Amino acid sequence: MSRLFEEFQQYLKKMNQYNHVCTLLYWDMKTCTPRLGQEGHVEALTHFSSEHFAMSTAPELGRMLDELAGLAESDQLSDTWKFIVRRMKRDFDRDKRIPPQLYRTFVQAQAEAGNAWVEARKASDFSMFAPHLQKMIDLTREMTGYTDPEKEVYDALLDQYEEGMDSAAIDGLFEELKKELIPFVKEILGKQKPENEAFTQYFDPDAQKRAQDLLLDYIGFRREAGSTGESEHPFTLNFSSKDVRLTNHYFENDPLSAIFSAIHEGGHAIFEQNVNPEYDNTVAGSCCYMGLHESQSRFYENILGRNKNFWIPIYEKLGEILPPFREISPDDFYREINHVKNSLIRVNADEVTYCFHIILRYEIEKAIFRDRLPVDELPALWNRKMQEYLQIAPRDDAEGILQDMHWSDGYFGYFPSYLLGSIYDGMFLDAMKEELGDVDELLREGKIREITGWLNEKIHRYGSTRRPKEAVMAVCKKEISAGPLIRYFKEKYTQIYGL
Amino acid sequence: MSRLFEEFQQYLKKMNQYNHVCTLLYWDMKTCTPRLGQEGHVEALTHFSSEHFAMSTAPELGRMLDELAGLAESDQLSDTWKFIVRRMKRDFDRDKRIPPQLYRTFVQAQAEAGNAWVEARKASDFSMFAPHLQKMIDLTREMTGYTDPEKEVYDALLDQYEEGMDSAAIDGLFEELKKELIPFVKEILGKQKPENEAFTQYFDPDAQKRAQDLLLDYIGFRREAGSTGESEHPFTLNFSSKDVRLTNHYFENDPLSAIFSAIHEGGHAIFEQNVNPEYDNTVAGSCCYMGLHESQSRFYENILGRNKNFWIPIYEKLGEILPPFREISPDDFYREINHVKNSLIRVNADEVTYCFHIILRYEIEKAIFRDRLPVDELPALWNRKMQEYLQIAPRDDAEGILQDMHWSDGYFGYFPSYLLGSIYDGMFLDAMKEELGDVDELLREGKIREITGWLNEKIHRYGSTRRPKEAVMAVCKKEISAGPLIRYFKEKYTQIYGL
Repeated sequence: MSRLFEEFQQYLKKMNQYNHVCTLLYWDMKTCTPRLGQEGHVEALTHFSSEHFAMSTAPELGRMLDELAGLAESDQLSDTWKFIVRRMKRDFDRDKRIPPQLYRTFVQAQAEAGNAWVEARKASDFSMFAPHLQKMIDLTREMTGYTDPEKEVYDALLDQYEEGMDSAAIDGLFEELKKELIPFVKEILGKQKPENEAFTQYFDPDAQKRAQDLLLDYIGFRREAGSTGESEHPFTLNFSSKDVRLTNHYFENDPLSAIFSAIHEGGHAIFEQNVNPEYDNTVAGSCCYMGLHESQSRFYENILGRNKNFWIPIYEKLGEILPPFREISPDDFYREINHVKNSLIRVNADEVTYCFHIILRYEIEKAIFRDRLPVDELPALWNRKMQEYLQIAPRDDAEGILQDMHWSDGYFGYFPSYLLGSIYDGMFLDAMKEELGDVDELLREGKIREITGWLNEKIHRYGSTRRPKEAVMAVCKKEISAGPLIRYFKEKYTQIYGL
Repeated sequence: MSRLFEEFQQYLKKMNQYNHVCTLLYWDMKTCTPRLGQEGHVEALTHFSSEHFAMSTAPELGRMLDELAGLAESDQLSDTWKFIVRRMKRDFDRDKRIPPQLYRTFVQAQAEAGNAWVEARKASDFSMFAPHLQKMIDLTREMTGYTDPEKEVYDALLDQYEEGMDSAAIDGLFEELKKELIPFVKEILGKQKPENEAFTQYFDPDAQKRAQDLLLDYIGFRREAGSTGESEHPFTLNFSSKDVRLTNHYFENDPLSAIFSAIHEGGHAIFEQNVNPEYDNTVAGSCCYMGLHESQSRFYENILGRNKNFWIPIYEKLGEILPPFREISPDDFYREINHVKNSLIRVNADEVTYCFHIILRYEIEKAIFRDRLPVDELPALWNRKMQEYLQIAPRDDAEGILQDMHWSDGYFGYFPSYLLGSIYDGMFLDAMKEELGDVDELLREGKIREITGWLNEKIHRYGSTRRPKEAVMAVCKKEISAGPLIRYFKEKYTQIYGL
């Protein structure tokens, strides 16, 4: 057994080297690579991810996993290693059915679509991106035909991002949200106040970067195990719990975008930094469930970051870094960061209407994969649904269907994760209040590290070893439901808007 | 032949992928990797550079090179491919003698020494770095025993950085400089003016970054093929002519450091961006001669950047970005950037006393490799030579022997390149004046791109295909001599200091 184990760990280590450089190539392409250098990086990424893929589907690995699965059955492995073997065997069995050439084509198309999306978004021209999108859809469909032949395509995709979830379960949760929130949002919008122009004045991008540093340090992002960059669209990635990176994008006339992206990505990063370091470089480390991951970024961004008490200990410091905030009262700030409005851009949406941005994307993804709607009809569908849920329509593709990078990466089925995350958050907040007491008071007193500590202990340290349903059950002792999130929205916004 | 050629090019392409990720790992470690993440990068770098090394010493490559060398002899290859085959065969014959385990040890020690140097410099404690330095010296000596068994160790190292150079030639050039410049500098120092405190006030580091952007754009660094970062010590590297990166380091109370580092690294970067793109991903692309490379960075930094006329078209813009410069007259600025003083830090030295900083390091390297001086005696030797050449001594190791990263990287024999570069520059300036006319006038009129164009045409586009001696002969029609540099110094500083 020790020989097998040693051989297996050597194999994992080598596979991990390939994964390591692929992660780095991706990071660098998004943060640092000049336009003419992208091609060289794409070539290297294609090469090394193909090598990684070949190792992850090699018969040699299959043999080791079979032997290890036998040991797991006879209870000769720790729970962690049982998980690692089960998960790797599941992935192995799926991936080995993918033709290597298809995988290579997918990776190359992914990189090219990523670049095409950046250019198309700049030009606000969906037609520049459409053929790449079609290719990503076709390749994704073809892939799931190999990986999950027994599943309906879109359910297979959902399960890839949030193991154990399918469209039946999500339909139930999202329909409940629509039923409760569509009338509630209309009620709020009836009480709409005029825009506060203080938030569209000039905010120095370099100072916004320093404000990000303040916020990240405050919530508990550890610098010795993390760094930051700039990219078109904010994201977080990690090499291990010891090296977690996040990016941001700074807009001169919109400080709240970078501030809330910083808190959001900071939430992802704090999750990854606090996974049990013994899981590093295995499938147990790094949370692979996107809904559960988003629950943490969105807990920081919304539940904490849009709570007035979060800002009490740091609002003055924020004003020192970004002087225009000195002229904005904490009350006006609080009102603006919870300003419910029918807006176009998902990442800038308030936490309530955000639900519709996700439901719209979820329904479009179902239309793509279930109804095979042609890509050139997608912008019109997008615009119709925006009208239906938020009574507005984008003026151009950049503020409509081109606003997100996800589809260019082939991340179909990812969007629902954001809203699943918020649904879990409603439940986590209830559990936290029961165990830590008054969360508002903790925030007011600057004791946010106690909250971070609770999340570390209850959620983060487990990494991928508990599936989302299991994690929610372990923390909340309840099945997943949208009720707590709806209650949270109604209590908070009834008070803010005096409904 | 076409089958051989195709096979060879496939092989080069794959080798290049390994080189590509090693370059990227190095870039990221210096610019972006958090402290705890360094270890993971070191592991990956060790793995991939060992793979690259294995490919570059494989019998399969040897066989192809032998066949190609045969074709070259019978004149069936282009001049470029003749060069590529000759250079690769030279490297192959040397490298194949290095035991793979030694190579692996070297790469790992290099990465560890790099990190140790950063920490030792922060703590200003040479003893933290000494064992790593000793290890790098021992490993370097061991390596040259394999690569250049017929050569004296230090001559082998010099030849690695500047093919065709040895200590006999360099002794001749440097002794002439010492003979002429020691009395000349004493004469200048006799006319010393008091420090201008305007240059030690606060200069916003973010604005210094924007000043770098101004300067790089001005001299002709192309953004579509380049990007920038921040690191402990400025450097330039490249993946190909299409992706050239440079870094800088910003000091709040010393704007001239970042300004001249930007122009210096910009000169390196412009060289690499303008190598014939057909040479990309071969040994012909990317200039591998460090003296020739430094001649270009130092031509921009000193010959152009420390010329008063360089600043005439952009001094006002510089003041818009860095407002303290509005209160400093162009005359005071010019005087400060050519302020000859006996200072401690090489990278901040004026162009005249800089020569002594290099001569000192050259002599210490000879003491290490020729006289086997123990590392713990090096700080004292450093300090004695500083006294001898510049009549000052460092107060601590950080401003003495720990100031440069080179030795931590195992770059022994590199330092003379800087001064060789300046020696070539004296000659290149003479040739440029003959062909382009009045260089001062071109600068004054903002026509620096004509100068960049001349350098592109005469030097850059050749990449590595001409060795330094050949390049100097082709451009200047003369053998290498220190005379033109000495004349340039005497004319310029006699005028500035009214000698």
